[in-house]
Amino acid sequence: MTSRPKLQEVSDLAGVSLATVSRVLNAKPGVASETRAKVLSVLADLGYQDIPVRPEQTGVVGIVTPEMDNPIFPLIAQTIEARLARQGLLSMICPATSDTVNEQEYLDHFAATHAAGIVIVNGRYADPDVGFGPYQKLAASGIPVVLVNGASETDNVPLVAIDLEAGARMAVQHLAAMGHRRIGVMVGPQRYSSSRLLKTGYLAEMDHLGLDTGDDLTSETLFTLEGGRAGVAKLIEAGATGIVTGSDLMAIGAINGIRAWGRSVPEDVSVVGFDGTSLASVTNPKLTSLRQPVERMAASVAWLLENTNPDLADTVHMFQPELMIGRSTGRVVVETPSGFKAS
Amino acid sequence: MTSRPKLQEVSDLAGVSLATVSRVLNAKPGVASETRAKVLSVLADLGYQDIPVRPEQTGVVGIVTPEMDNPIFPLIAQTIEARLARQGLLSMICPATSDTVNEQEYLDHFAATHAAGIVIVNGRYADPDVGFGPYQKLAASGIPVVLVNGASETDNVPLVAIDLEAGARMAVQHLAAMGHRRIGVMVGPQRYSSSRLLKTGYLAEMDHLGLDTGDDLTSETLFTLEGGRAGVAKLIEAGATGIVTGSDLMAIGAINGIRAWGRSVPEDVSVVGFDGTSLASVTNPKLTSLRQPVERMAASVAWLLENTNPDLADTVHMFQPELMIGRSTGRVVVETPSGFKAS
Repeated sequence: MTSRPKLQEVSDLAGVSLATVSRVLNAKPGVASETRAKVLSVLADLGYQDIPVRPEQTGVVGIVTPEMDNPIFPLIAQTIEARLARQGLLSMICPATSDTVNEQEYLDHFAATHAAGIVIVNGRYADPDVGFGPYQKLAASGIPVVLVNGASETDNVPLVAIDLEAGARMAVQHLAAMGHRRIGVMVGPQRYSSSRLLKTGYLAEMDHLGLDTGDDLTSETLFTLEGGRAGVAKLIEAGATGIVTGSDLMAIGAINGIRAWGRSVPEDVSVVGFDGTSLASVTNPKLTSLRQPVERMAASVAWLLENTNPDLADTVHMFQPELMIGRSTGRVVVETPSGFKAS
Repeated sequence: MTSRPKLQEVSDLAGVSLATVSRVLNAKPGVASETRAKVLSVLADLGYQDIPVRPEQTGVVGIVTPEMDNPIFPLIAQTIEARLARQGLLSMICPATSDTVNEQEYLDHFAATHAAGIVIVNGRYADPDVGFGPYQKLAASGIPVVLVNGASETDNVPLVAIDLEAGARMAVQHLAAMGHRRIGVMVGPQRYSSSRLLKTGYLAEMDHLGLDTGDDLTSETLFTLEGGRAGVAKLIEAGATGIVTGSDLMAIGAINGIRAWGRSVPEDVSVVGFDGTSLASVTNPKLTSLRQPVERMAASVAWLLENTNPDLADTVHMFQPELMIGRSTGRVVVETPSGFKAS
């Protein structure tokens, strides 16, 4: 007799939930050994012979992220965790920061413990001096690896990324449509691919619109509140009425800095954030921001972890950000150097 | 010959950093097996005989938290991670939410993998129907367990907690000192200890000051933005000019709700947050909040994980919050029902 027992019957007899029975039948993790034994014993009593063996695989996926101070990182990590949980995988989120635990320590740990997968969010590959070597090595050892954000190209390790260039272009278009001509950009340190991609998108769209992109309209700073606050001075001095930034934190810092100069947002200067985190909705004025479609990106990560076909090793799933229009951007109300005057 | 080799010499010969040599010598985790082998071989070449054996202990600590949407949770988790990293421990942060992975699945995983410790932040023990049984069982199996927040008492499992009662009293004192007499409180669902502790502190201080605490001045809602926004209506209707809340998210939601009613913060209604997260500094007006001394709490967690003396099993390390005065609270400027008028 090998017919599949009715789940409800097993659930009733073992005194556990249907979900637990299903987990045991599918050899998924997350069931206490005592509970598992009880369910298996009920299955045996019912004459079920095809009893699953708990696989050796730990069913653990490591998600290595930058510091958690920027809410986009816990958001991405938790969304991936929730998506992987539907496949019976347990996620372990590991913030790697230069002064605590570095990325490589976490990678070594997950390699040594034969993790079911490793996801690296804005990892060290964003620095071309590091490159993709450490991740290729992991993948070669048989552990599915997926990179998330911080680059637009990859080399033999699948990448899921928000399109930073497209985002910067969308931000410039939004500002230009409201009459802005002096538009500046705030980027992070130039050694990161993400900073270069933002700037490339900004320059491309500004050129396309025939707008000035002098060096005084680019501010290189940090992707943080403090970075935004400090970096905005250069752009105000350059007469920018619109500012494209690389993160919501940076945008909020820029708004604080603009106010510290006695100017108003958006009356004097409009600011566009990036990421569309919950921060964007709690600021006053509400932040205009480029939202990352985190749910869909997490679904891509889950798919790439499951499909480790070598043909997919160079896959890049590139996602377009969505412009969320808040109240930190508005029409130009002052004359700009080019003589444009808004209605 | 057993003299200790010069670290620099080993570092040069093995071609690895001084930090890596030190990790190998101290049998700390986070060194790739290949690298470790290279360092050990150099040590052997130099005649060093007291070569450390890598302990069986995985050196991993699981930090189980609620959902990461509330920035206090990633902040606490990351601060504990950084503190434990100084002791050579690798932290794995695990957000347990009712609709993804539940707390017990993570606890089972860390028990099965013989973790070096488990930290549970605002865990299910905050619900008295769950109690401390699951944590006592873990601790009895020899795994150091420390609970963080969500309770003021414990039973045979050490607890590190912010003093919610004291925080609510401080918030009432701050508002009363600025002339507020109609002071309301927003708490989370009553089944959680944290909600009851907040309310107890609020009632105690209000009674002490001889102020009214009718049921209309208590709003039971969720510890979220949406909860704060929805829950504030009842308090506005009750004529509250000052509001004590249980989280920064809830306070920001309340401010949004107050504005939606056409009232101003702090001119019409003052709001006090709780946690002192980075959110408090980006809102406009800047939030008055009760900050958790997260660094010192993390140091306590680290100490309790290391000192598993049974005499310490009932330890409660209770921390006082610090009042950070922002601009979401101010003097009363309207007449209150009790006839009080501010200067």
